[in-house]
Amino acid sequence: MTDVGKTRTQDRLLLVADLAGTLVFAVGGAMLAASARLDLLGVLVLSFTAALGGGILRDLLIGAVPPHAISDWRYAVTAFVGGIGVFLFHRQAALIPAWLFISLDAAGLALFTVAGAGKALGRNINPFLAVLLGGVTAVGGGVLRDVLVAHVPNVLSTDIYATAALLGAAVMVAGIRAGIPRTVATVAGAIACFGLRLLAVQQHWNLPRVGD
Amino acid sequence: MTDVGKTRTQDRLLLVADLAGTLVFAVGGAMLAASARLDLLGVLVLSFTAALGGGILRDLLIGAVPPHAISDWRYAVTAFVGGIGVFLFHRQAALIPAWLFISLDAAGLALFTVAGAGKALGRNINPFLAVLLGGVTAVGGGVLRDVLVAHVPNVLSTDIYATAALLGAAVMVAGIRAGIPRTVATVAGAIACFGLRLLAVQQHWNLPRVGD
Amino acid sequence: MTDVGKTRTQDRLLLVADLAGTLVFAVGGAMLAASARLDLLGVLVLSFTAALGGGILRDLLIGAVPPHAISDWRYAVTAFVGGIGVFLFHRQAALIPAWLFISLDAAGLALFTVAGAGKALGRNINPFLAVLLGGVTAVGGGVLRDVLVAHVPNVLSTDIYATAALLGAAVMVAGIRAGIPRTVATVAGAIACFGLRLLAVQQHWNLPRVGD
Repeated sequence: MTDVGKTRTQDRLLLVADLAGTLVFAVGGAMLAASARLDLLGVLVLSFTAALGGGILRDLLIGAVPPHAISDWRYAVTAFVGGIGVFLFHRQAALIPAWLFISLDAAGLALFTVAGAGKALGRNINPFLAVLLGGVTAVGGGVLRDVLVAHVPNVLSTDIYATAALLGAAVMVAGIRAGIPRTVATVAGAIACFGLRLLAVQQHWNLPRVGD
Repeated sequence: MTDVGKTRTQDRLLLVADLAGTLVFAVGGAMLAASARLDLLGVLVLSFTAALGGGILRDLLIGAVPPHAISDWRYAVTAFVGGIGVFLFHRQAALIPAWLFISLDAAGLALFTVAGAGKALGRNINPFLAVLLGGVTAVGGGVLRDVLVAHVPNVLSTDIYATAALLGAAVMVAGIRAGIPRTVATVAGAIACFGLRLLAVQQHWNLPRVGD
Repeated sequence: MTDVGKTRTQDRLLLVADLAGTLVFAVGGAMLAASARLDLLGVLVLSFTAALGGGILRDLLIGAVPPHAISDWRYAVTAFVGGIGVFLFHRQAALIPAWLFISLDAAGLALFTVAGAGKALGRNINPFLAVLLGGVTAVGGGVLRDVLVAHVPNVLSTDIYATAALLGAAVMVAGIRAGIPRTVATVAGAIACFGLRLLAVQQHWNLPRVGD
């Protein structure tokens, strides 16, 4: 395989992974919309926001405009496919086993984290802030989704979720700074995020609260 | 009339229409602020947000910064005039007949929709996403307005409102793509949005919800 | 002292003042997070949002991307120091006398106001809109902070707070337009904001509401 062919295959793999993460987050947004008794439009808006809000926020903050979700139609279409799927097959969606949904969601979290931190680094953002932007990419959509249904974002009060994203981004950025090949550091960051998230769910870990 | 004169007249007409839409949306924002018992500053903030939030969101997303609401003082002044008007004459404002307010609001919706989709197309945004951005321009301000008073945005759960905007934007964008003159396609899109909105109010149409 | 030395000293003073304001606003955000029973991550997110959200909003609106909070790591670190401080020493933080906290907060308000209006003027924003952007810089972080815990932002319904910021920005911008030296106008604007804020607290002033 030529180098160009290799790069194209890698790019295609990354796009497929990115769209898969978009689909998973969109399904989560649509399920929240359904439980909040929104209509079809509300389901689509929450799918879009949950799946693409984090990336849009990151792109606005690093000055990458228009954001990828506005310059490439495949992202919005993927988010809407997730929303319409939940709308049509909500009974079946409710039957997805929790462990499967949590695993897919953790994979999406890991993917968005390393994609976000990597894009920030590529724009010469300071490494510490690139870690934060990895976290914003991964959980920003979920925060906006919760704000739209007037909930205090779950991620701010319970669970090891954003924390897993920040750990993954920190592993990746530290690895790249230490001279580890970019691909290796990225995979290590994604595994760290995915692993901590699943471990925390299994062990019922929470961050401390003030006064605990 | 020379061509230059014609363009200037058109531009002036567009600006007047845009400011009229801004005024109508500002009045709606101020009336929500009044019912939420906000003070004078809150009334002004909700007027500004309801009237100009959608356009600002669109401009940030397509990279048109500073947004028109920040680069042209006439928009903010118009929004504040609407807010102060409701503050001073709230008793009289409450007497505006519902059909009149709904009609003016539908006209504002139609106008913001075609203005938003048109501006996105002019920035080489993909036609499908230009339709979405038409919708964002038309309802984004209302969503932000509702979030500021901790309400779930009405547009996500009831009514044919954003749907009318999306239809109007789709008619306009499809018309332009089909080679229809831009002005004709724009007017057709605005009429489609305005007509569907009023018909939906009159017929009490709603979008389906999950499980309906 | 040479002119270069003088400028450097001024720049350093400005940075120290800006970081001091960031710290005060971060402490306020963390205390709200604690009272809303958020976890450590929620405390840090609210510290960051309260302290830096207003400046980020201003920078996005005037097209200064990446915003200063994303291009200079010292801002985020300062915000997190405030958040971690409240998390660790919340009992001691609750003992800060109200008058001291209100005075520090009013000083932060004054500082963010004049910094925001000054940055907008430097980007050739219209003076009237520069005054508004001074207000956005000063209170935008607090509004976002309140939205994240699903509260109607306090600033919209009670108190002379944003009003003090707008007055300070107006004094500064009017002074500069009238030809008063920039430093004098800036100090006058900050004093006007600080003074009105403290006077309003002491006198229990409120803006009128609709129907009052």
